[in-house]
This record gives sequence, C-alpha cells and structure tokens, in this order.
Amino acid sequence: MSENSPETQNAAMVIGDEEIFEAHLGGKIALDLKSPLDTQRALSIAYTPGVAQVSRAIAADHTLAARYTWAHRLVAVVSDGTSVLGLGDLGPSASLPVMEGKAALFKTFAGLDSIPIVLDTKDPDEIVETLVRLRPSFGAVNLEDISAPRCFEIERRVIEALDCPVMHDDQHGTAIVALAALMGAAKVLGRDITSLRVVVSGAGAAGVACANILLSMGVSQMVVLDSQGILHLDRTDMNEVKVELAQRTNPAGLTGGLAAALDGADVFLGASGGVVPEKLIASMAPGGVVFALSNPDPEIHPDLAAKYAAVVATGRSDFPNQINNVLAFPGVFRGALDAGAQRITEAMKLAAAEAIYSVVSDDLAPDRVVPSPLDPRVEPAVAAAVAAAASVS
Amino acid sequence: MSENSPETQNAAMVIGDEEIFEAHLGGKIALDLKSPLDTQRALSIAYTPGVAQVSRAIAADHTLAARYTWAHRLVAVVSDGTSVLGLGDLGPSASLPVMEGKAALFKTFAGLDSIPIVLDTKDPDEIVETLVRLRPSFGAVNLEDISAPRCFEIERRVIEALDCPVMHDDQHGTAIVALAALMGAAKVLGRDITSLRVVVSGAGAAGVACANILLSMGVSQMVVLDSQGILHLDRTDMNEVKVELAQRTNPAGLTGGLAAALDGADVFLGASGGVVPEKLIASMAPGGVVFALSNPDPEIHPDLAAKYAAVVATGRSDFPNQINNVLAFPGVFRGALDAGAQRITEAMKLAAAEAIYSVVSDDLAPDRVVPSPLDPRVEPAVAAAVAAAASVS
Repeated sequence: MSENSPETQNAAMVIGDEEIFEAHLGGKIALDLKSPLDTQRALSIAYTPGVAQVSRAIAADHTLAARYTWAHRLVAVVSDGTSVLGLGDLGPSASLPVMEGKAALFKTFAGLDSIPIVLDTKDPDEIVETLVRLRPSFGAVNLEDISAPRCFEIERRVIEALDCPVMHDDQHGTAIVALAALMGAAKVLGRDITSLRVVVSGAGAAGVACANILLSMGVSQMVVLDSQGILHLDRTDMNEVKVELAQRTNPAGLTGGLAAALDGADVFLGASGGVVPEKLIASMAPGGVVFALSNPDPEIHPDLAAKYAAVVATGRSDFPNQINNVLAFPGVFRGALDAGAQRITEAMKLAAAEAIYSVVSDDLAPDRVVPSPLDPRVEPAVAAAVAAAASVS
Repeated sequence: MSENSPETQNAAMVIGDEEIFEAHLGGKIALDLKSPLDTQRALSIAYTPGVAQVSRAIAADHTLAARYTWAHRLVAVVSDGTSVLGLGDLGPSASLPVMEGKAALFKTFAGLDSIPIVLDTKDPDEIVETLVRLRPSFGAVNLEDISAPRCFEIERRVIEALDCPVMHDDQHGTAIVALAALMGAAKVLGRDITSLRVVVSGAGAAGVACANILLSMGVSQMVVLDSQGILHLDRTDMNEVKVELAQRTNPAGLTGGLAAALDGADVFLGASGGVVPEKLIASMAPGGVVFALSNPDPEIHPDLAAKYAAVVATGRSDFPNQINNVLAFPGVFRGALDAGAQRITEAMKLAAAEAIYSVVSDDLAPDRVVPSPLDPRVEPAVAAAVAAAASVS
C-alpha cells in the first residue's frame, strides 16, 4: 500500500474529539497589535492626542481611510448560520467556529486580516441592510454558509449594494476549484474540456455555481439535477435560478433522474449532499471523471468510484484530489484587494481556476489533478492572476 | 525646572505628523492565530472536517459558544463617528483610527480581543437594531464617540436590548477616572468628598456621567452647567437628561452662568470643550481643585489654574494628573467579562473608581492624584474590584 493511498491517509487522520475541542477553547483567533503600546509616546501616537491628526485627515479626504486604517484590506466573513458546512441551519453561534476557521485560513494563506460577523437574522433584506450599515468597517465580504436559494439573492443584492469585492465562497470557491480540477482531469484524459458530457447533481449553492462556471468555460453538454431530477423547461416547480440554468443547459432535452442523466456521461460532479448508487456510476462512459464533493460523506466512496472512473476527487482531506475552497478564496480576495477591484468578475474567477490548474499542469496524475491545500505556490499564483484579470476587466 | 514639570514633558512629547501617519499605515491592528495552520492535521482540526464537531456541539447547546469561540470575551468597539474625540461629527471612516487605538488598548491593558465596528448610520433605531443582529458575534459592547444627547438614549436602549456588558466609554470611563482623581484630591486636601462644592461645566456625555457618578458617591452640593448656564428647573430649554440632572443637583437653586456657579466653589470639573476665564477660577474657594478635562485644549491652562487651585488635572498626557479613560475601561470590561456579568452596574463603576484610587492612595501628592496610564497595577485592581462588585449585585 503506498503511503498516499486513501487507507493510509485515512488512518493517519483520525483525530479524536478531545483534541478538536481542546484546540477550540476560547476560539481560534485573537487580535494583534502591529506595534506595542508600552510607552507614553506610543500611546500618544496611537491614541490621543496623535490619532486626532489621522482622524482629521480622513475626515477631510475619505480616501485616506484606505491608507491609515485596517478596514480597506479587511475581509468580513459573514454568515447567518443557515447552512453550516453540510449540516444545515445550525444558527449563527454554531457557525462561528467555521467563520473563525475561515479567518485563520485568510491570514495563513493570503496574509489578509478578517473578522467573523455572524448575524441573528435570516431575512435577506436585513442581512443586506446590516452589511450596508457596516460598510466603513471592512474592505471585502466573504459570504459563507448561507442556505440556497436565499444565497443567490443575498449575494446578488450585497454585490449591488456595496462598492467592494463580495463573494459567496460556498458557491464560487467551490466552483473555481472544481473547474481547476476538471481542467486537470481533462488533461490527464487527453480530452478537451468543452467536449465532455457533464452531469451536475445538486442545484444548491455549489451546484449552481459549478454549472455556471463550466458554462463560462464553454462546457455545453451539461445537465443539472436537483432533488426532483433533471432541470428542464417543462418543469413547473423550479425557482428562478433553476429556470435560468435550465435555459442554458440540457441541450438534448433530457428528462428524468440521475439514471437518465449519467447514462454515457463523462463527468459526474456531485454537490448534492445525497448518494449516487454504484450502478449509475457504472453506466457512465468508461474512463471518466467522478467528483463526489459532498462533505463529510461523498456521494459515493472514492474507492467504489475508482472502479469505473479514471479520475476521482472528493471534498475531503483524507483522500487524494481534495477539491478544497482554500485553494481559491485566499488568493481571490487577495488579488481583488491588491488590484483595488470593486467587483469579483467571472473573468477573475476563471483566472483563479486557471492559476490553480497551472500550478500542477506539468505534474498531473490521476490522483493529482489539483494541488494540495498546503501548496505554497497556489495563493500567490491565484492572487496574481485575479489581480491581472481585475485590471483588464 | 524639575524633570516632570509640564514644560519639560511638553517638549519631550512633541511628535511630528510624519511619525504619527507612519505609525498608522495599514492600520494599527491585525488578526492573529492562536495556533498555526501549517499542517494537514491542523487544517483538519481548525477547519473541515474537525470544526463540524464543534459546530454540532454548539447547535445542541448554545452555551458552548462561550467556551469554543472567541465571541464571548470579544469587545465590539462601536461608533457612528458623530463625536470623534473632541472634533465633532467626522463620520465613521474618520473614527476608525480611534476605534483601532481603543482595540489596541483593550489588548495591551486587559488582554481582551476586540473589533472596531463603525456604522454608516446615525439613527438610534438603526444602531440598536444593527447591534441586536450582530449579537452572536461579540460578548460586550464599548460604545465610543457618539454625540450627546443621542448617546444617552442609544446606550440605554443597547443595554436593554443586549444581554451582555455595554458601556459608553466617553460617559462612564471619564466619570470613573474623574471620581478616582477627586477621591485622591480630597485626600490630599484632607476633605471629605461629600463636603465639596462641585461645579460640573458641560452637560454632554462626560459632564452628565461625571455628575451622576458624583451623585452616587454622595456629593450633594453640585451644580451642572451647559452652554446656556446653570441647570435649574425653571429653565424650559433642557432635554430630558438635563431635566433629570436639574432635579438632582443645584440644591441652592442657583441661576446664571459660570460666574455664579464658581463663586466660592471647591471643585471645577470642566468637560465642556469651552474656556473658563482665569478670574472665575480666582473666585473659587482657596486651595481647591480644577479638573480641566477638555481635549486637546483644557478649559484653562494648568499653569494658570495652579495659581489658585491646590490640585490641577487635565485630560492630556503632557501634564501631571492625566484623567485618562484607559485607567478604567480595560479593567471594567475585563472584570465584567470575568464575572460573566450581563450589565455594568453603578456599583461596578464605583468599585472601579475606588480601585484606581486605591493604587495611589498611599502615595498621593498634588501632582499625583491618579496613577499613570501605564501603571501596571491599575488594570488588575480594577478588574478584580469590578468582578467582585458584579457578583454581589
């Protein structure tokens, strides 16, 4: 058994609850001073009377806030706790450890400061309104763990309301990394990505965003399914987002469920929280791709999927090919802020995916279609690509 | 000239704008990780999949958020920028350097984490509502630089709405330290504090709070003035807060301005942003007390005041006897959070003042009626006293 086989990694990664809870005592993040306040002189500079000069200067020219406060490059990590990881509506307090983790990842991977903001409201109007009122406190918004389909409206309205980078990471972080992985898989298979027949199972935050970014890449042979089956225009039970997807996908006009969708397909991209039976994976075209992204339980165990597919990926750290958002969001926000961008555009997301892919493109293998989340080359490559795409757009 | 004379201190403390702005580049605070995220194992503990255990546990028992997140001991430093230092309504962005400084002071003096929240609204309803929505994100609220009389209503309503310690520092931080200093001055003068005839000039945030805490201490011979003169019940131009103060002060029924108030008074406490002529200070009872707290320009230069008063204090770091809020707020919040208090009561504020006084009570002198802001004995004494008062109340 090789050292990198799933079984070995799995065994090595068994972590007891005690260790997990111990590591969370008092939270995972803290405030730090850029320089100490241990002399009267330091106090007089950082607080009164010195700080008055800085406040006066910003009052006279608001653009100076970007230069003399932390807010301009500060990411607000915002959740209402309605869709915490794959666990559902656990509420804002229970989402806080995830937001703290996110803040720790922003700092570790992109050197960006961030603050967790968890909201005791689920009302989209109130969420947007609250962020508008908080606007001078931060420089970007990472929306997180907000349930679908509310997340689509909330993200759209927050983007419209704020003149700073805003991204719902559960949508676009996942989509960017899944696209990067699919670019890697296509290269391994010797296929053009636009020639692949793709099935996206799940029309929640991640599924919709994956479908959209694949459309942007020119993938046209794609069907998307929700819990009621394949999205097609004859259905009358779809929300606005699904209607729009149905208009842009399923050119063959397929109806029915996963069996109809997967028959002969090249790619299964699961973002459903559900299960896909082995026999349906077996019905796919041989030598294809299975991305079983649901966490903590993939739609199919990667060992089973590997019996049929040439490339298998999951969202988990204990199997190869982890589709992990951390490959994308630190560099995406860093690049957007470095460029002074007010929007995170489709071009910037595609640039991020290409940058992630580029890190491993010379070193691809079926069990290495994406870089490791700890690969130090990724964030600088993503940030640079996103910043370049921002200045073009 | 002694090394501690105002002139020498003044000269030593001249700080150029260049140094001040340099120290503010990119802001004064940053986020810190409690432990590094540099291994796959650390990632799996602090983020997925490990964090899911913690989120699940908090969802099942919300009280565990206090144990496993930073929010329970996190102070939100909140401003709308309507009264920044003594500079007026500069707006939220211009207030941010002050809030960052405050956050740095909380960390330095009390080891407490905090986040600056500056709000792009001046509407009391919206401010209260926003903090209610943000409630799961923090464990205490330090209101800051909010203009009077709005600050009285906003503080009262935020206290009512939130089950956590809330304090408007411009009111109560100033009042606590002023009381501590007056206790020290009374001891130096050999007077009982309740025997002093006190004039409070200014009925804004600081003046009202100073008057109230002195009333709590049993000071009954007190008049308070606003820009229209002495508060008395025949006036028809007073807001609710001033009417209430007029009912509880001015037992002699004085009318008129500062001249009428100061004639024969023992204590001048200036919190007005205005000026008091030397001849009025000369009209006070001999050997009295002048606290000229306006910043950056005291109501009267301390050298002039010292011609008549036995004890002189200001709000500035470059003269002796600095009445600096930093002596109070770190320990007040630390003590309240240590005790798990849901309110900061009058008893806790009085305990804080007595603790500050106790640090210097054996070592008092006319130019040392309060400890230095850098005195490391202060915060632990205040925190312990406040926590003890919290558990009694």
